[in-house]
Amino acid sequence: MKKIEDYIRTVPDFPKEGILFRDITAALEDREGLRLVVDEMEKVVKTMEPTVIAGAESRGFLLGMPIAYNMNLPFLPVRKKGKLPCETIEESYDLEYGSATIEIDKSGIKKGDRVVLIDDLIATGGTMQAACRLIERLGGTVEGIVALIELTDLKGRDVLSSYRVESVVKYEGE
Amino acid sequence: MKKIEDYIRTVPDFPKEGILFRDITAALEDREGLRLVVDEMEKVVKTMEPTVIAGAESRGFLLGMPIAYNMNLPFLPVRKKGKLPCETIEESYDLEYGSATIEIDKSGIKKGDRVVLIDDLIATGGTMQAACRLIERLGGTVEGIVALIELTDLKGRDVLSSYRVESVVKYEGE
Repeated sequence: MKKIEDYIRTVPDFPKEGILFRDITAALEDREGLRLVVDEMEKVVKTMEPTVIAGAESRGFLLGMPIAYNMNLPFLPVRKKGKLPCETIEESYDLEYGSATIEIDKSGIKKGDRVVLIDDLIATGGTMQAACRLIERLGGTVEGIVALIELTDLKGRDVLSSYRVESVVKYEGE
Repeated sequence: MKKIEDYIRTVPDFPKEGILFRDITAALEDREGLRLVVDEMEKVVKTMEPTVIAGAESRGFLLGMPIAYNMNLPFLPVRKKGKLPCETIEESYDLEYGSATIEIDKSGIKKGDRVVLIDDLIATGGTMQAACRLIERLGGTVEGIVALIELTDLKGRDVLSSYRVESVVKYEGE
């Protein structure tokens, strides 16, 4: 039987020179790969007993929504600034060059919500850290962060040290 | 019991003046809303007997992935240009001002694949038409296009007249 690692493509020099990009597209484009990826992540998410699943645009949408559906939970989309047509709260975070801003629906989290954040990949942890702050500002708690892939050398886990962080597949190096 | 329409927010003047934006965020942020939306779309998709589910970035990702998972099918992401790290084919289409380009993985569709395209909303039909061309260029057939919402006055259905188009909720006017 194929493992998740067998479905992940490694693409050199994308999106720029020197980066080894870990691509989940081929896993989703295979029916067994898709099921394996969602099921393995869901097993971990269940141990965190969330009441809300959240995912960041747009690969966090791909993985978060089937988990939310299967667990009969709501899904909170974490979006890039300007995409949500409702009243929002926002957080900015630093990128290698410049910064980025993400938003959530102000009424998307209620006090006492127990949230698990889903993403395809944890690298520096910047996006997830900003997403955690958004959830906490609305009175929710972050029960954990679950990623399919973790790039351990980028030390996202250190940035997210106040949270439970779990990943299904780990790679050293970028 | 609440209907899908009860979960869809109408936001005036977003993303610009004069547009009534139909927002699915509140439906996904409610566990019953999320389940209802996915289940109603899936019922229609099943009648088309696809072998692949495709969805356009990024709201098509939200709705397409749980349907693909539930039907035990692969998911083909249709992405904005420059996001896919693999060999791609691309199509451009006109917007009100300027144009946009979408891409798919060149190995994401094989000859004979029967594809259903999922989106949150059909307006002018431009994105879906370009997505259909991509699938057909690789030898796939488009068995249907399933949207949660259709803005009937924008006549996307006319642009997509060679395909079976189904929508769960219809609104007149923009």
